Formats: sequence, C-alpha cells, structure tokens
Amino acid sequence: MNQIVIEKTSQIAAILREKKVDLWLTFVRETSAGGDPVLPLIYGTTGLTWQSALIFTAEGDKIAIIGRYEVETARAIGAFDTVLPYDESIQPLLLETFNRLNPQTIAVNSSQNDVLADGLAHGMYLNLMGFLEGTPFAERIVSAEVVISALRGRKTKTELERIQAAVDSTLHIYAHTFPQIKTGMRETDVAALMQAEVEKQGLGYAWPKNNNPAVNSGPNSPVGHNAPTDIRLEPGHLVHFDFGVKQADYCADIQRMVYILREGETQPPQAVLDGFNTVVEAIQAAFKAIQPGLPGIEVDQAARSVVTVAGYPEYKYATGHQVGRLAHDGGGLLGPAWDRYANTPFIPIEVDQVYTLEPGLMVPGHGYVGIEENIIVTDNGAVFLHPPQTELVVVK
Amino acid sequence: MNQIVIEKTSQIAAILREKKVDLWLTFVRETSAGGDPVLPLIYGTTGLTWQSALIFTAEGDKIAIIGRYEVETARAIGAFDTVLPYDESIQPLLLETFNRLNPQTIAVNSSQNDVLADGLAHGMYLNLMGFLEGTPFAERIVSAEVVISALRGRKTKTELERIQAAVDSTLHIYAHTFPQIKTGMRETDVAALMQAEVEKQGLGYAWPKNNNPAVNSGPNSPVGHNAPTDIRLEPGHLVHFDFGVKQADYCADIQRMVYILREGETQPPQAVLDGFNTVVEAIQAAFKAIQPGLPGIEVDQAARSVVTVAGYPEYKYATGHQVGRLAHDGGGLLGPAWDRYANTPFIPIEVDQVYTLEPGLMVPGHGYVGIEENIIVTDNGAVFLHPPQTELVVVK
Repeated sequence: MNQIVIEKTSQIAAILREKKVDLWLTFVRETSAGGDPVLPLIYGTTGLTWQSALIFTAEGDKIAIIGRYEVETARAIGAFDTVLPYDESIQPLLLETFNRLNPQTIAVNSSQNDVLADGLAHGMYLNLMGFLEGTPFAERIVSAEVVISALRGRKTKTELERIQAAVDSTLHIYAHTFPQIKTGMRETDVAALMQAEVEKQGLGYAWPKNNNPAVNSGPNSPVGHNAPTDIRLEPGHLVHFDFGVKQADYCADIQRMVYILREGETQPPQAVLDGFNTVVEAIQAAFKAIQPGLPGIEVDQAARSVVTVAGYPEYKYATGHQVGRLAHDGGGLLGPAWDRYANTPFIPIEVDQVYTLEPGLMVPGHGYVGIEENIIVTDNGAVFLHPPQTELVVVK
Repeated sequence: MNQIVIEKTSQIAAILREKKVDLWLTFVRETSAGGDPVLPLIYGTTGLTWQSALIFTAEGDKIAIIGRYEVETARAIGAFDTVLPYDESIQPLLLETFNRLNPQTIAVNSSQNDVLADGLAHGMYLNLMGFLEGTPFAERIVSAEVVISALRGRKTKTELERIQAAVDSTLHIYAHTFPQIKTGMRETDVAALMQAEVEKQGLGYAWPKNNNPAVNSGPNSPVGHNAPTDIRLEPGHLVHFDFGVKQADYCADIQRMVYILREGETQPPQAVLDGFNTVVEAIQAAFKAIQPGLPGIEVDQAARSVVTVAGYPEYKYATGHQVGRLAHDGGGLLGPAWDRYANTPFIPIEVDQVYTLEPGLMVPGHGYVGIEENIIVTDNGAVFLHPPQTELVVVK
C-alpha cells in the first residue's frame, strides 16, 4: 500500500471527466533508467522494467499491463483493480484493453510546455504509434498535459502535510544558521553549515546538493542555479540564500536575505532597505493578486511591475512556480509570456496548489535581493505556509 | 571538473566519425524532474533548468547552450569549449550554431529500442521540430542510438575501476551473509541482513532497495523483480539471491544460489544438482561464445540451448545485459529475438563492454536456480570480473 499513490489515483477519474478525456495512458519501460515524472504519483517509486501501460479511465478503471515478473509488486501498491501480465509483447493486451473500453480520447504524457507532463519518450511514442497502426485509436491520441497538471497541482491531505513539514524544517535550519554567520566566512562555509544540519536531521534536498543552498554574498557572486563559491562574506554585503529540504518525498523552496553591517552602521543603508522593501512589496502584490481561476501571468505582472515601477530592471525569471514532490512541480506558472515558458503562464490558478513567490533585484555595490515565500491557494486566495520575511536579518 | 564527464566526452568525436554523424544534440529542460539518462555521462548530475542544448561534433566541438543562470556551473564541469548563455529563447543561438557548423546529420536522443538512448521527450521533439521549421536541419535529424550505445558501452578506465569496486563490494556482502543464513528465517530477514551491511558500508543500491536483494526461498516464492516475502527458509529449499550495490555511481548485478539441506542429507538431491549444474554450464557456454563483433543473440542462443536441451523450459528473459552506471545499462543485449527486445539482440558485442550472464530454471519442489556473473569483453573474448559460482552454497 502506497498512501500517496492511493490518494492521487483516487483523484484521476474526476479529473478525466472534467477534462473530457476518456482514457489516460502512461506508457513506459525500464523506469529505473529515468522514468516518466508522473510515476511516483500513480505507481510509486518501484521500477517498471518491460514496456508497461498504466491506464486510468473516466469511469474509474485502474489497469496496469506489465511484465509478468512485476505482477506481485504492482498488486502490492493497492491502487490497481486489474493487473494484466504479459511475457513477450505488450501489444495484444494493450489493443484488447483499448478495444474493450473503446475510448474516444486517449491522453498520453506528451507536452511541449510542461516537463512533468512530457514523460513519454519520443521513441516510445513511435512504438505506441506502431502498435496502434491500422486501428482507430491512433487518431484519438491527445496530450495529457491538462490531466497531469490538475493531478500534480491539486495537493491531497497527505501531500499538504508533507509539504508543510518540509517548509517547517527548511525554516528551522535557516533559524539555526543565521546566528552562526560571521564576516570572513566563505559562501561554501555557510552552505556546509546548513548541509550538516540537513544531514544530521536525516533530511533530503529539494534540488541537487551542489547548489542547495545557493549562497550569494555581495555584488560579485554569480546569482542563479550556481554552487556557492569561495567568495567571503564582507561588511556591506547582502547575503542571499536559496534553500529547500525534501522530507518524506515532498519539497520546500525558500529564499532568505541577510545584510552584514559595515563598521559604524546601525542599520543597512537606504539603497539596501529600498531594494529589500521593494521585493517584500512585490511579494505582497503577488500574494494579494492570487485568486483561483486567474491565469498566473496576472500574478506575475502584479509583482513584476512593483519592481520595474520602483526603477529596477525586471527579473529574468518567473515570479513563482508550483512546489510539491519536486521543487519545480510543473503545471501553471506565475510567469511572463516568454517563449521559454510556453503556455504555462496562461493556465488558471486552482485551489490546493502550492506556489512560490520569488521576485528579485540587484542593489548595486551590495548584492542580490531575492526573497521566496511558499503559499497555498484557497477559495479565498493565497495563504502563506510560514511567516514571510519582512525584515532583513542583520549581522554585525 | 568531473572526471567521468571529461573521460566520456573525450570519446565522443571518434564515435561520431565512426558512426558517420556530424553533430550530436542532447536537448533537455528541467532535468531535476527526470532528465535524459545520457546526461550523467556528458554533463554530470547537476540540473539543467531551461531548455538546454549540449552539442558535440565529429570535429571535436563541445558546446553547451544553456540558461544564463547556469553558465558558471556548466563551465565548472570542465568539458565544454564553448558555453553560450541565453535569456528568453534558445532558438536563436541554436539556429546560429547549426548554421555555423552546417551538419549534414544531426543525431538526437530518440530510440525505439534502447531506453538509454531515448531521452528526448516527445514534447521536446516537437519543440525542436518547431525551432527547425523552414530550415534544412529538420530533414537531417537521425537517431543517436548507435552513438549513445557505443558511448555507454565502451567503459573508460575510471568506469571500469568503479564497476570492479562495486562487484567486489557485492561479493563481499554475499560472503558476509551466507554464514548467517539459517532455517526458519524469512526472506525479508535475510534481505535485511544484507541491506544493513550495504548501509553500514555507506554503499548505494544498483536498483531500488525494495527488491535489492531479491531473495527467493523454495518453490512458492514469486521470482522476478519482486520484493522479498515472509516465506521462511526451509530444509529442501533452493534460496536464490539477486543483489548489487552501487558504488561511486557504478553498479554490480550478481545472483547467487544457496541450498538448505534436509534432515539426513549430506548433499543436495540430484534434481537440485542437475538444475544448478545446467545453469553453470549455460553460463560457461555463453562465456565461451562471447567475441567482439558477434551479435548478442548468438550468445543468448548458446546459453539458452543448454537449458532447453537439458529438458527445462526456456527462461523468459535475456541471458545477459550490460552493466555500468545503471544495473541495466542499455545498448546491445545478449537476448533472444523477442518483440520486447526490439533490435538490441542484433547489436554487435564490443571490447570494454561489461555484461551479465544470467540463465535460470525451476527445479520442481525445490525452487528457482539463477546465477548471474559479470564479465568484461576483451579482444580475446570474455573475462570474469570475479570468480563465478560453480558450487552451491550449502546450509545445514
């Protein structure tokens, strides 16, 4: 029994009816080599070796067609009504099942926009089309993008509990770290402190350890998905953190800001405060804009315009992304209409989705300001999963 | 610097010339969500977030076109001559690079046969085709299957050292476990002993822990990729193990056999010995058959016919697969011409490939016999990476 898989698969039939999809097919093989990212939600983390078909219908069928040697494992998951084993080729059972159910639409895991809905490899797509050649089903293939986006996005009770636990642990490690920060430490030293705590607590990393946490001290540290460097923390530096733990398979993703006072300073200089407060204000603008049904681009605009109206260059990334089993959990994005984001900024926001809010800007001579909060969408708008940062952590 | 990536990427240009491919493109995004399985060999385990193109040419160019925020990380790998960052869309730099190099063949990671050469998601394939629309390059796309198969298969010095270390650790844990096996233990008890040792030594698992080791005691244990059960080890049982550790990112995959003597027995009954010796003989037949240049199906036939000529039903899987960074390392297979294996049994064996040899059969009333050895291919044929099992481990 896999509680997450049982909760998630119980959401599927209603989503398929809502999205007017008769049958959803996940078609994979040798998943230990890097499988479809939807598998942990609908099958668990156990591997599937030979070509395997996981089939869900709008009428509630849950069918696994898999290699004979994996039948016991598939049954033990507790989510499938029907487990059909084969020995040499999956094609006969797959066609038999399609013929019996006669779906008018067959959604497969292919998406130009969302990596998490794009788990069907191109070669496997060609294999599937080969199997369906000469049948009416080849013409009925559609993208499962909207199905997977809804399924990943709408967090279940257990998923929300786990995300909250990851958020709490992440903030706890921040709180444990800040009092230890001193001028002269290297970015790598600070990162090592935090990673020691992650490991002591038996937690995992929401993204690779290499740049988790990211630590950027001062104006010359390369900001982005880069590993901490040997740059030392100096008075006058803004120190930017991007950090998140994974706990029981679910993630948090939170950025925090520290300022190191210079000799004689009792508070950060005005330029630093202005930058920090602009980011806080941008987050509040995004927070207030969030409503179920609104496309993410409108939330992005609300935050982005606070930054640009204040006279800073616009940040070159989206204001927020979904968080869940992955730090970047796919689906709708709180982002601008840029090529690389495809349609994701236009997908409506839904209840029970969890998003980051993470605008940012550079304060010349001091460094990068980025704050990132995690929120959940409710019927009444956004709710923070934790207290947002509204004041700089100041180190003497 | 990533030693494996540096060694592997230095193999690429010669492979491209040999396979008559001008340019090899790996096209990915958000790889932390489950990226292309070739990435650990050509980029490392760090994530790539926005759409990213890793380009290698027959003339030796090594080019990474990636999101601006990951430039430092890409440079730190030490394998790319040229790192080209972009902000909004990868298309202009991608087309500019193609126009400059003007490749006549562009290999992409799509394969109907080999999961490890099929890392291009179907939606990403559509994105690529969109970018190339109206250019001559759309027509020049071919499969990188033979490139990736050669690259993964031909192990470098560091890769071979790491595989050997994983093999040694796997056999060490077997040797540590056998003296502790007693009648009355459950399959799960024996597995727990082995996993405790894996964890004590800080090793990883070559495939998921759930069924690593697989332990099958007696005639009623479900054999295959199944987790150990509560079945107890009893006198007269054959106990079958399938186990492998991952060490410094490389795997071993070894099966071993134990027999539990019944009251009054001084050696296993003849039927058990016959079954065991048939499998040993089948392995020897495969071992002797292996030669560079031979298609894997001939090695499979050599082993399989020993089993069927001895009167046992043929095993429903391939005689052997490649081992490396993954327990099932893709490429050519020592397998039969079954649908689900596609063309992989017809790919010629090459020097420096590592294979398993793992025929099996059932001995009615006693259980499953499967032995699995790991060999490396040399100019003169196969060499065992460890002493093969030629006698049953007998428990009183």
